[in-house]
Amino acid sequence: MTNKVKAAGLLLVVAACSAIPSKALAATAARGTEAWAAVDPFIGTGGEGHTFPGAVVPFGMIQLSPDTQIKPRKEAYGWAAGYRHDDSTIVGFSHTHFSGTGHSDLGDVLVMPISGEVKLERGDIDKPGSGYTSRFSHEGEVAQPGYYAVTLSDYDIRAELTASARVGVHRYTFAKGKPAHVLVDLRTSMYDYPGKVLWSRLRLHADGTLTGFRETRGWAPGRQVYFAMRFSKPITGHQFHDTERDVPYKGFPPPGKDDPHQRAQIEGRQLVGALDFADAPGQPLVVKVAISPVGEDSAIANLDAEMADFDFDRVRADAKAQWAQALGAIDVDAPAPMRTSFYTALYHAFMGPSLFMDSDGRYRGPDNAVHQAKGFTNYSTFSLWDTYRALHPLLTLVQPEQRNNDFIQSLLAAQGASPYGVLPIWAFHGQETWCMIGYHAVPVIADAYMKGIRGYDTDAALKAMVASASYGPYDGLAQYMELGYVPIDEEDEAASKTLEYAFDDWAIARVAEAMGRKDIAAQFQKRAANWRHAFDPATGFMRARKRDGSFREPFDPTASGYGSDYTEGNAWQYSWYVPHDVAGLAQAHGGADKLLAKLDAVFDAKVDPKTFEHMEDITGLIGWYAHGNEPSHHVAYLYAAAGEPWRTQQRLGPIMASQYSPRPDGLSGNDDLGQMSAWFVFTALGFYPIAPGSNEYIIGRPFLPRATLNLPNGKRFTVVADGLDDAHSYIGSATLNGKPLDRAFLRHEDIVAGGELHFTMQAQPNRAWPGKDAAQPYSMSH
Amino acid sequence: MTNKVKAAGLLLVVAACSAIPSKALAATAARGTEAWAAVDPFIGTGGEGHTFPGAVVPFGMIQLSPDTQIKPRKEAYGWAAGYRHDDSTIVGFSHTHFSGTGHSDLGDVLVMPISGEVKLERGDIDKPGSGYTSRFSHEGEVAQPGYYAVTLSDYDIRAELTASARVGVHRYTFAKGKPAHVLVDLRTSMYDYPGKVLWSRLRLHADGTLTGFRETRGWAPGRQVYFAMRFSKPITGHQFHDTERDVPYKGFPPPGKDDPHQRAQIEGRQLVGALDFADAPGQPLVVKVAISPVGEDSAIANLDAEMADFDFDRVRADAKAQWAQALGAIDVDAPAPMRTSFYTALYHAFMGPSLFMDSDGRYRGPDNAVHQAKGFTNYSTFSLWDTYRALHPLLTLVQPEQRNNDFIQSLLAAQGASPYGVLPIWAFHGQETWCMIGYHAVPVIADAYMKGIRGYDTDAALKAMVASASYGPYDGLAQYMELGYVPIDEEDEAASKTLEYAFDDWAIARVAEAMGRKDIAAQFQKRAANWRHAFDPATGFMRARKRDGSFREPFDPTASGYGSDYTEGNAWQYSWYVPHDVAGLAQAHGGADKLLAKLDAVFDAKVDPKTFEHMEDITGLIGWYAHGNEPSHHVAYLYAAAGEPWRTQQRLGPIMASQYSPRPDGLSGNDDLGQMSAWFVFTALGFYPIAPGSNEYIIGRPFLPRATLNLPNGKRFTVVADGLDDAHSYIGSATLNGKPLDRAFLRHEDIVAGGELHFTMQAQPNRAWPGKDAAQPYSMSH
Repeated sequence: MTNKVKAAGLLLVVAACSAIPSKALAATAARGTEAWAAVDPFIGTGGEGHTFPGAVVPFGMIQLSPDTQIKPRKEAYGWAAGYRHDDSTIVGFSHTHFSGTGHSDLGDVLVMPISGEVKLERGDIDKPGSGYTSRFSHEGEVAQPGYYAVTLSDYDIRAELTASARVGVHRYTFAKGKPAHVLVDLRTSMYDYPGKVLWSRLRLHADGTLTGFRETRGWAPGRQVYFAMRFSKPITGHQFHDTERDVPYKGFPPPGKDDPHQRAQIEGRQLVGALDFADAPGQPLVVKVAISPVGEDSAIANLDAEMADFDFDRVRADAKAQWAQALGAIDVDAPAPMRTSFYTALYHAFMGPSLFMDSDGRYRGPDNAVHQAKGFTNYSTFSLWDTYRALHPLLTLVQPEQRNNDFIQSLLAAQGASPYGVLPIWAFHGQETWCMIGYHAVPVIADAYMKGIRGYDTDAALKAMVASASYGPYDGLAQYMELGYVPIDEEDEAASKTLEYAFDDWAIARVAEAMGRKDIAAQFQKRAANWRHAFDPATGFMRARKRDGSFREPFDPTASGYGSDYTEGNAWQYSWYVPHDVAGLAQAHGGADKLLAKLDAVFDAKVDPKTFEHMEDITGLIGWYAHGNEPSHHVAYLYAAAGEPWRTQQRLGPIMASQYSPRPDGLSGNDDLGQMSAWFVFTALGFYPIAPGSNEYIIGRPFLPRATLNLPNGKRFTVVADGLDDAHSYIGSATLNGKPLDRAFLRHEDIVAGGELHFTMQAQPNRAWPGKDAAQPYSMSH
Repeated sequence: MTNKVKAAGLLLVVAACSAIPSKALAATAARGTEAWAAVDPFIGTGGEGHTFPGAVVPFGMIQLSPDTQIKPRKEAYGWAAGYRHDDSTIVGFSHTHFSGTGHSDLGDVLVMPISGEVKLERGDIDKPGSGYTSRFSHEGEVAQPGYYAVTLSDYDIRAELTASARVGVHRYTFAKGKPAHVLVDLRTSMYDYPGKVLWSRLRLHADGTLTGFRETRGWAPGRQVYFAMRFSKPITGHQFHDTERDVPYKGFPPPGKDDPHQRAQIEGRQLVGALDFADAPGQPLVVKVAISPVGEDSAIANLDAEMADFDFDRVRADAKAQWAQALGAIDVDAPAPMRTSFYTALYHAFMGPSLFMDSDGRYRGPDNAVHQAKGFTNYSTFSLWDTYRALHPLLTLVQPEQRNNDFIQSLLAAQGASPYGVLPIWAFHGQETWCMIGYHAVPVIADAYMKGIRGYDTDAALKAMVASASYGPYDGLAQYMELGYVPIDEEDEAASKTLEYAFDDWAIARVAEAMGRKDIAAQFQKRAANWRHAFDPATGFMRARKRDGSFREPFDPTASGYGSDYTEGNAWQYSWYVPHDVAGLAQAHGGADKLLAKLDAVFDAKVDPKTFEHMEDITGLIGWYAHGNEPSHHVAYLYAAAGEPWRTQQRLGPIMASQYSPRPDGLSGNDDLGQMSAWFVFTALGFYPIAPGSNEYIIGRPFLPRATLNLPNGKRFTVVADGLDDAHSYIGSATLNGKPLDRAFLRHEDIVAGGELHFTMQAQPNRAWPGKDAAQPYSMSH
């Protein structure tokens, strides 16, 4: 049975890869498995990365991962992904996690295997054994794409996790001779406070299925998660508790009243259940858990659709096969540490957007109502302020076109169901959080559209983009439309908003132009120049204006803060955000030389590391450059865009070396659903999309001796870096398909046509490459 | 348009009445209108009745009614229906209400028209104008079946209400010259406390539709009500507020952030919105509101299905027609006050169970999941501990068989979806409250089945009854099955539970016997005798035993209290609960004479009215007899059942006179979804079903000179009381269809065959009627 299904799983993989010539398949599969083996999911679980080490399939709805106990008096920020590598106690395994966010939420349906006496509370972190939390050590802890294992040392329980798209699978091997229990705690989550859980339910069915739901007011309001859980052994007893106290009127208790062992169901806001299992030495307990945004019945249907049996190993093998296929999109020849960094970055790039749809196509939209996906697969968890920059452009190169179309269809469906009529801003599990700024679903759609990904209603897409850019009540947009900038006396962080709106407007103009909608193109091309309203020629910085047109005073380019002129940054960080018009930016500064000199001042500044202690997210400092946060991500590439590629090459080495490493603390900032990782992947390959929608990638410098993109269209694009080593990090010359490359950027069509980009590396900068007469990138020529 | 639809509405009435010969229709419709005119919905809105005066159609999902402001430091109990006749301020009009409960809940979607300055809080009841609450007076207040009107004197707004099944319709005539607003308050309800509203939402759609939802932890846990609201005039402005403070982490605010005027949607736990309308003298604003248990879209669909326009008068006329048809089920000749009491009682008997299903057949079950009704109309609000006694038996006589079948199908569907596998105990809006004791869905089903109402899966019905009587965790049922009684040392109120379980068991035995299921019949016939385990021969009272078989001591037959031996009563009240075996009860007492003497002691006792001040519900005292609560309802009929009909006749007059009157405080106890009223209807007709399932009605004495039941099968059954007046209140003789009636009970077949029951009344008791050789009712002969 196992082998048969395994074979079927592989067939599925083959089918999904059908664009790749079959003779290449075997080699690709083998290379994919090598790529899988190179991944270290612990990277980013320490430091500022906020990744998690648990089990997930690419873009899966389930992220099953251990949660470590939050230290008393610590903020939620550091535990946004549930697990911190420097912790020593595990509170359980929950089924939903963000990969790399700043805010915390999710952590739904915490399951913890214990033995001996049943404890219902986590206990005091400083008193081992005072609660159900268990100590663990990294010895014997295993994390692979699709698999995680740890020994819970307080109980001597070996816990293994794996996952399919909608099902998390646990395998617990209990120590002999002690009563075995499984706790299901609906109270706990990444950041738990009174009132976060609005309502919840645990229900034990006659056939031994446990279902339930949890509705929370967390980062997203009123989010509902339903689940269904089945066990490979009979439940021999159970107890359901509501630990909430001081409720004025709780209504009538269920049958069995105060006897938690007799309750078939419990509802409340602080629920925990314990299930008992017979001691059975050598026979692990397998627990399979499906979630659903729709209902408990739907969760059962998801469970049945994806896992009819309890074959943990088959699910694990399937997860591995899926990862091998996904990671096989890029073949890399490089030393082991670089391979680990690279494939782990690629792995982290495949965490989101995540599947958000039941097996029958139903999901919950931003109106909190249930919708049926027609003709597409619905995804959510759009960290758009981050991911529009490099993650989505990467996914267009390394994921099937259908998946990219599905992302866009999901965005459009969300817009259709939005109570506000706008595309998602920062949405997860279908719900809008309104986090960060801009309307960056727009450049995601625009970039895909411009690259020929058009498997959706393109007219509706343009309408949705225009509607999102025209919704007055949103973040000063009414004033922006009136004044050409967001006035700081009426809206916080006005400088950043003006800049990012202008970029998004340019993206709309690009699409409208391509569609022949000249009226819209003209309207938004005009808005795309609104960055000029933020530029202060006197100081050379982008600044926030007031309604009366004057800049807000006093001005300190080093100042930052929530509600300041800027969003998670200061003037030194935000003043370069004109990726669509670097020529204009240079002109505003009085010429490219002056702009580039100012960029040097960014990197070379002496900055007190404590400058940003009052703010989350601004990390990874090199001078004022803050690689740990997204506003800096295009900055090093501006040298090349503005005509000095060697200076980009010069900057990238230290960034890669200082901001990434193949260690748990190897990400200098939140991975932000893969944006930090996507930056790494592009930069390692040797190019980066500073302005999604332009169909161009600015060439930096390669960090891999050889890399091949196995493109969704079946073609291959190889980047070779002859002579690359630490001492030879500059591009001496470059050819594309054997012809000299006379420009410091690639066009999207260069890549998708397949071929070879060949760099010859050298020790010293070649300031003459690509030369004075080189072709100019979009942002220098429009 | 109006007349046309009105005509269609009448046609619908005609179609529904098709069982009645058409030549009789016109007369019936006219009599129905007279009956409609006789109803006074204010009866029961004062005192202990807990009824509401608002607009509803028979068994409708909407109960649109004014809510008066709860006085500070008052318990919710008195405001269970939202409105108290002795109050002088109205807080608004909400769309769901219980008719006559003890517990409070519902009061969903409070709408209040105001003018002038917008106030978001109710204000101080002692300071008029301090909040949005308005004063009102009973002058100019109108309540008719399907219609309610009042003048909100603080604003000089005339507010009128009417309803269809799923839509409540408001018509507001504003005074001139002041800004007109409509408040929608999702915070308030019958009994509001922090944490009652778990989550809620207000959403203003681009087309001016307001939708939303409210999820509450009230009497029922986790209940969800969705709504959709449309206005006959354009909304000129709005503001949405969340008045909750001190929430640790609220997530991100919606667009427009702190500007409540820009919010298209708001979510939270304490929401209130205000909508603005242009001042338009002489043009009333019509507001139509549909609710749904399923979703906001479903509420919109319900609105569209039932009311495409804003024709308030048509809906009002349709509601009137529905009531005229329903009330026309009984034609009564009697003096005006008696007609008012009688038809108001009949009106109150048609409040529940209430429709609980969207226009597309979907509803929410006890598992909180959405279900599709297949082949039936779903109802909820089953106050079964009350209504199995007389309300459901009444409805089998005066409502179409299909509706009675629908009730049973609804009960069976609920059992199928129950997490516990049991029939509803006390359910509303699909949710189980576990209120009161027993499994009295059983006698409802049994009574209908025995009367030939079998339009459902009868095998499934028997299984559901047996399952409900076999669910061990419920209220000491496991011990009851083990010991033959509920042990008081393990379960509260054990004496009452033992007695009521035994009756329900007898009802199962009756059905099983009729189905030829001898095994089940024998098993439950044996359980039906379990009342004997509660009987204490030494004291002559029913008492609670402990597991060791001894009665709990000390024993005080006058003692009552929550968690005592009895449920809402004492030994004097509960010791007669063997309606299925009065012969056995008499025998246990040492003969019928001794039983009857003890019953006299019940009625003739001198009882301090303060005895039950510590308990709700025990009201309407005549000696220990407490007519205001259900355990007493069959007691006066026991004389007749045990062979002394004249003593029942003697008792009934004072009960009718002291416990009912056509005034707001005219109900001596909670109407309990029509049980108090159904007792009145039966008693006024002259007979009462003491043991539903027996197909018998014990004859009391008539209170109406003439009454005709227009039966669902098209036949008529007339009761005539010759010579009836206050001085002639005893039955001298009786004939059925012209032949002397030699028994003090009716058989169900006597009634449904049609015919005439003719009483000759006299001044003195006829102790010889019906005679020593009279046929014995079931409970004296089995």
